[in-house]
Amino acid sequence: MAQLGLIGLGKMGFNMRERLRAAGHEVVGYDRNPDVTDSTSLEDMVSKLDGPRIVWIMVPAGEPTRQTVAELGNLLSEGDLVIDGGNSKYTDDRINADLLAAKKIGYLDCGVSGGVWGKDNGYGLMVGGAASDVEKAMPIFDALRPEGPRDEGFSHAGAVGSGHYAKMIHNGIEYGMMQAFAEGFELLEAAKVVENVPAVIKGWQRGTVVRSWLLDLLVRALDEDPELDDLEGYVEDSGEGRWTLEEAINNAVPAPVISAALFARFASRQEDSAAMRAVAALRNQFGGHSVKKAGD
Amino acid sequence: MAQLGLIGLGKMGFNMRERLRAAGHEVVGYDRNPDVTDSTSLEDMVSKLDGPRIVWIMVPAGEPTRQTVAELGNLLSEGDLVIDGGNSKYTDDRINADLLAAKKIGYLDCGVSGGVWGKDNGYGLMVGGAASDVEKAMPIFDALRPEGPRDEGFSHAGAVGSGHYAKMIHNGIEYGMMQAFAEGFELLEAAKVVENVPAVIKGWQRGTVVRSWLLDLLVRALDEDPELDDLEGYVEDSGEGRWTLEEAINNAVPAPVISAALFARFASRQEDSAAMRAVAALRNQFGGHSVKKAGD
Amino acid sequence: MAQLGLIGLGKMGFNMRERLRAAGHEVVGYDRNPDVTDSTSLEDMVSKLDGPRIVWIMVPAGEPTRQTVAELGNLLSEGDLVIDGGNSKYTDDRINADLLAAKKIGYLDCGVSGGVWGKDNGYGLMVGGAASDVEKAMPIFDALRPEGPRDEGFSHAGAVGSGHYAKMIHNGIEYGMMQAFAEGFELLEAAKVVENVPAVIKGWQRGTVVRSWLLDLLVRALDEDPELDDLEGYVEDSGEGRWTLEEAINNAVPAPVISAALFARFASRQEDSAAMRAVAALRNQFGGHSVKKAGD
Amino acid sequence: MAQLGLIGLGKMGFNMRERLRAAGHEVVGYDRNPDVTDSTSLEDMVSKLDGPRIVWIMVPAGEPTRQTVAELGNLLSEGDLVIDGGNSKYTDDRINADLLAAKKIGYLDCGVSGGVWGKDNGYGLMVGGAASDVEKAMPIFDALRPEGPRDEGFSHAGAVGSGHYAKMIHNGIEYGMMQAFAEGFELLEAAKVVENVPAVIKGWQRGTVVRSWLLDLLVRALDEDPELDDLEGYVEDSGEGRWTLEEAINNAVPAPVISAALFARFASRQEDSAAMRAVAALRNQFGGHSVKKAGD
Repeated sequence: MAQLGLIGLGKMGFNMRERLRAAGHEVVGYDRNPDVTDSTSLEDMVSKLDGPRIVWIMVPAGEPTRQTVAELGNLLSEGDLVIDGGNSKYTDDRINADLLAAKKIGYLDCGVSGGVWGKDNGYGLMVGGAASDVEKAMPIFDALRPEGPRDEGFSHAGAVGSGHYAKMIHNGIEYGMMQAFAEGFELLEAAKVVENVPAVIKGWQRGTVVRSWLLDLLVRALDEDPELDDLEGYVEDSGEGRWTLEEAINNAVPAPVISAALFARFASRQEDSAAMRAVAALRNQFGGHSVKKAGD
Repeated sequence: MAQLGLIGLGKMGFNMRERLRAAGHEVVGYDRNPDVTDSTSLEDMVSKLDGPRIVWIMVPAGEPTRQTVAELGNLLSEGDLVIDGGNSKYTDDRINADLLAAKKIGYLDCGVSGGVWGKDNGYGLMVGGAASDVEKAMPIFDALRPEGPRDEGFSHAGAVGSGHYAKMIHNGIEYGMMQAFAEGFELLEAAKVVENVPAVIKGWQRGTVVRSWLLDLLVRALDEDPELDDLEGYVEDSGEGRWTLEEAINNAVPAPVISAALFARFASRQEDSAAMRAVAALRNQFGGHSVKKAGD
Repeated sequence: MAQLGLIGLGKMGFNMRERLRAAGHEVVGYDRNPDVTDSTSLEDMVSKLDGPRIVWIMVPAGEPTRQTVAELGNLLSEGDLVIDGGNSKYTDDRINADLLAAKKIGYLDCGVSGGVWGKDNGYGLMVGGAASDVEKAMPIFDALRPEGPRDEGFSHAGAVGSGHYAKMIHNGIEYGMMQAFAEGFELLEAAKVVENVPAVIKGWQRGTVVRSWLLDLLVRALDEDPELDDLEGYVEDSGEGRWTLEEAINNAVPAPVISAALFARFASRQEDSAAMRAVAALRNQFGGHSVKKAGD
Repeated sequence: MAQLGLIGLGKMGFNMRERLRAAGHEVVGYDRNPDVTDSTSLEDMVSKLDGPRIVWIMVPAGEPTRQTVAELGNLLSEGDLVIDGGNSKYTDDRINADLLAAKKIGYLDCGVSGGVWGKDNGYGLMVGGAASDVEKAMPIFDALRPEGPRDEGFSHAGAVGSGHYAKMIHNGIEYGMMQAFAEGFELLEAAKVVENVPAVIKGWQRGTVVRSWLLDLLVRALDEDPELDDLEGYVEDSGEGRWTLEEAINNAVPAPVISAALFARFASRQEDSAAMRAVAALRNQFGGHSVKKAGD
């Protein structure tokens, strides 16, 4: 059985610790929250691990992750291995890896998919870095990934950064799929030709082309709230959707579906659209078309 | 000087009568509104015209226009000419023309652009029908179209229906252009890098690639309301944008810009989006992402 | 065990007959192709069925289906039931149902999903029509649908037309999902950050948010042809995608993802784009930008 | 009359020198091309200018411009002024300005629109930087901008960077407008309802809502080549369209039209689309739909 230091015991990290322990691995967790942590500091956590150590970072992307990597650079030793399992931008990985490589500490980036269901179902994993480092961490990956053939829930995508790159694209696809279901749902609701919309969607779970985990989740949501009117059509976006679109720009790849899905989220968060005020103003100017006055 | 029967004296028809009379033509208008009409009924209007008569219809597209054509079929005589200057769908024209042709009455369809500015600036005209009918009505077209070379403000597009077809596509392009300006306006507003947004837009009126009448109108709107916050981003659509998209479908022509402009209008009118409620519900299901509850 | 007349023994109908017979039902098929038919004519097929008869139509949508319905109207008797399992437009269903109702013959429309895999996996079914007619045909539906709970692979969507409506929306969603995967695949291919693209996609099959039947099929395609370069990026569209977009127009529902997916198919079939020739011409006009001459 | 150093005498810079000289200004140009240059080196150019000097850079954006700024930092003196009139990304301007400010040299960024027509029509100008620097260069701006009121062809957009920002958004809008015309053109061509497409487009030049300089250029292009079939639908993109989309991402502003226009250009340059190969492969997998084999 392997031993792992795990930094960040939020929604994801906490569940991953559960799954790893259930598989028999030893996990020394660290979190600023004293209610969940197994150690009092990063230093304390590191001291509790036998070498060569493996430390998994599961903290927010960006500054928190970069800072954690820097601190680990000072605490770990030659031959140790750091895995960033958060949602970092893939360009951060090369920087993190170089910083640690200067101290002969290994680095892997690991995209982790599956959300709150991962604890029981396992997590889809996409890993970037050296094959020898991947090999070292394989017992951990095998415990986190779903049951079944390894290559259906885990991939070694390539060099450092490629794991997060694969996860970014995965999320871009996810944006598009979710929006496709969402448009279909709205069409069914609006047209009122189908009388029992939740039943139709539930009936798509077997045999159809659209059967998928997202469909299963939509069925679940409709079971709880058949018209989804307990919540608002207000949708956040995390970094991956934006980064996917940046990659489309950088590589001159048309991405009309992924961009449309991202823009729909942007629009969902606007109380009023400056763009549409401009269109209303133009119509009013040329055609004397009536406009809604603010405050009407 | 020519003589014209003009049915429909609303915002457009009223102004057209003014322009035609200013050019010296005789116009006998008919409208249900007694304050503006020149005749008490269609029959009365027709009786006041010398043959061969030319009658211009300027009433709402669809049923009102079709019904007016049918009534005229009973009132007019062989050799008369009917012109539909409204925003009819081009497929209506063939039906109207055939109905009148059975009585040897001519038919032209005429797309009219220019809005409330047409009275003074002239109207852009696109005409479909037989060349001999176009010739008969040319004094009317010449009075309605803008000053300058005839072929820069008037076209004979082809057979019956082609005038409205050209106008439909014109409006589809207009949707796209307006949305392009609108997105640019919102970006300038949102980024706050440009300090004086109205000045920048005003400064685009000469020398730039985007100089256009729509830009002039946007400048005018910003003169009156520099942040366009006296109105709401709520935008109606008339038939032409939808029909243009139907034509894209029917002809397998990609129309991503025109469709995006149309969908932006649809979205502008939604209080809350069922689609985005579905996306929010899915995110909540898989990730435990927080959602805005209705009523929050 | 039930008895069924089945008209149309092409790719779909042939497999459905296999599945129905494997379940113990008696199927009398009719097809113009003598190699596969069980009867020499529609009349012959009908004569081989005991009343009250159930006849399933599985021929191309549009004229062929409408004509088959009309012929069945002359051959069947009061109390018989016709099921259109093809990809008819939902507006055809009301017409078909009324025609048969005049002769007291029942009518159901049934959207069928699952493609060539349906023979073994079962077909996802969405049915529109009267509950009593649905009840009569339930043994057939139960044999065609996948194993598992009935309501996960079958739905009674509502009145006549709602089955095909549900199938149309299903296919619109499918278009969007496929395009989402397609854009992700192209991004992975273009960026070359991920070294082993098929392995990453294969590794998404378990635990991830995008796991789905379409993903499984993409994995299968990549197993056979890892860069998908044995085929061309030329994609047909059938009616459902277009009709879904028409519904979006008719109901003023924004459908940016589904429309983008449809337009991508349109564009994939163009050797050269008139639109992009116009953009090239404009750039050349204002900027003297070089253009590719035809034939270069 | 003012004196100006002008670096870069390509298509744009050469014409600007002509226009400035025609207005009576003294221009000392520098270009690596000995056929057009007025000086043998940057040093030589600077030596020919009286202080306080104004130097206009008109070289490609990115490295060439940044390097020229650095060299000018070594050659110019306190109180001199550098204007970057190229298509630099607005984020470069702050860096350039700071570098020069360390030597008390002023800096303005100036977006320049109008293409090859600017020599005769004047250029639309958008300037960022200190008001005092703008004032110094006003005689130059007045000579370059079009006839007419200054504020219709020139704007002081705000601080350093805002001129290029305004130009970037201008170009984003331009992308959308061009694509709108392009889609309209393709629809007219494809549907064949309008018999005389060039005549219809020519007839839009007066009175219509879409009248614009781009329309005039489209008319000009159609005069030369009525079906635009002397060129290919292959369209380059410069930085501004991509940067506009990046700004949309960074500011969470929906930009469906501008992104669609950019993606259409990306797609126009693809011989074959990996994305559409994936869609074709998927259709083949589930439906046995025929595919075009590469090389067919």
